[in-house]
Amino acid sequence: MPRKSSHGSAQPVSERTVSRLILYRKRLMGASEDAKKFVFSYEIGTLCGVTSAQVRRDLMLLGCTGSPNRGYDRRELLAGIEAFLYRPNVENVALVGVGNLGRAILSFLTGHHSKLAIAAAFDTDPAKTSCVTFGCRSYPIADLPTVVAAQRLEVAILTVPVAAAQDTADRLVAAGVRGILNFAPVTLRVPPHVFVEDIDLAMSLEKVAFFARQGQQMERKHA
Amino acid sequence: MPRKSSHGSAQPVSERTVSRLILYRKRLMGASEDAKKFVFSYEIGTLCGVTSAQVRRDLMLLGCTGSPNRGYDRRELLAGIEAFLYRPNVENVALVGVGNLGRAILSFLTGHHSKLAIAAAFDTDPAKTSCVTFGCRSYPIADLPTVVAAQRLEVAILTVPVAAAQDTADRLVAAGVRGILNFAPVTLRVPPHVFVEDIDLAMSLEKVAFFARQGQQMERKHA
Repeated sequence: MPRKSSHGSAQPVSERTVSRLILYRKRLMGASEDAKKFVFSYEIGTLCGVTSAQVRRDLMLLGCTGSPNRGYDRRELLAGIEAFLYRPNVENVALVGVGNLGRAILSFLTGHHSKLAIAAAFDTDPAKTSCVTFGCRSYPIADLPTVVAAQRLEVAILTVPVAAAQDTADRLVAAGVRGILNFAPVTLRVPPHVFVEDIDLAMSLEKVAFFARQGQQMERKHA
Repeated sequence: MPRKSSHGSAQPVSERTVSRLILYRKRLMGASEDAKKFVFSYEIGTLCGVTSAQVRRDLMLLGCTGSPNRGYDRRELLAGIEAFLYRPNVENVALVGVGNLGRAILSFLTGHHSKLAIAAAFDTDPAKTSCVTFGCRSYPIADLPTVVAAQRLEVAILTVPVAAAQDTADRLVAAGVRGILNFAPVTLRVPPHVFVEDIDLAMSLEKVAFFARQGQQMERKHA
């Protein structure tokens, strides 16, 4: 479970609000080809599966108010969301664990994100370090403290085996990391100022399998 | 956003309830080394970051009631959760897209899950098919309808590029798939009986980056 944190401004921002803002941006970007200059809250709501009232409340947080007649200026809205969510420049992140999953994430993110880039990767296996994978330099794990500190990396992706996850998280936090995207199926113990988001592939697949079966049962009942 | 579905029994089961039950099982399994025979709801709650009242409500759904003095019988509880969540035998699933991410998931899940196994993989690239990757046979995408139907695969993992995602989802649904774990950053359009769970790596990383920065601001404010 991700640890909660409160926003720097007067009003705390929940994880769900941030997740929705990220989704609004993604959908507004995705619709860029045939984009109109203005967009109504109900249109954003339909794109994202959210009520228009929720969209308006979320955007009010950023100080974005649309016109009742024309809606929101699409470009201003995107700029407002991005100013709220991201740093002005590309943010560099670290990746620890250059195995199959680590390499897949390197390949997936490298050059595909305008706001985040993996700047350094780490592994314990000498065969996987001192080389460049998908454009990212890999270092021995012993170099983690100096590289993370020197490059001021504050976000890390953790793709190490379960047995190494807590120790690696401790090293990352000691080096100054404040946010971890954790793929190891284990609950990390971190100080309160560190935010952890877990992605557990097995748990997600178990959930899909359960509801796939429920859909089947529903159909049978209605048959 | 995952599509909602209702439980086959009288009472509908929410996604959150199912996610918690999956988590209870995972934590109870993880604690197996030094496991006691009985476990109290507050102990499960502490392991999972949930209130003990919530734990008791969820377990009541399965017909599991603990004793006020001793708590729940750990083995009975695990058996009850598993009977609720899983099929009696291992469930076979399909994977489409044997790229970096697909291979990482094959390597991650193969032989590591007692209830779910990837039985068949598919790709459009002939170089990636008609071979065995991490113990799983890969087929050309043209064979998807026959293989999925013959093996009665009802759950699929989608690790294809965005441009191919909707078309692949359509083929899977036509072949009988009722649940999709989707890694393509796009909203799939599926019939109501099909459950979709999205894992968007970029969006998760954006969320971590945001809250990592908030933690920093909090510290600055308190400094």
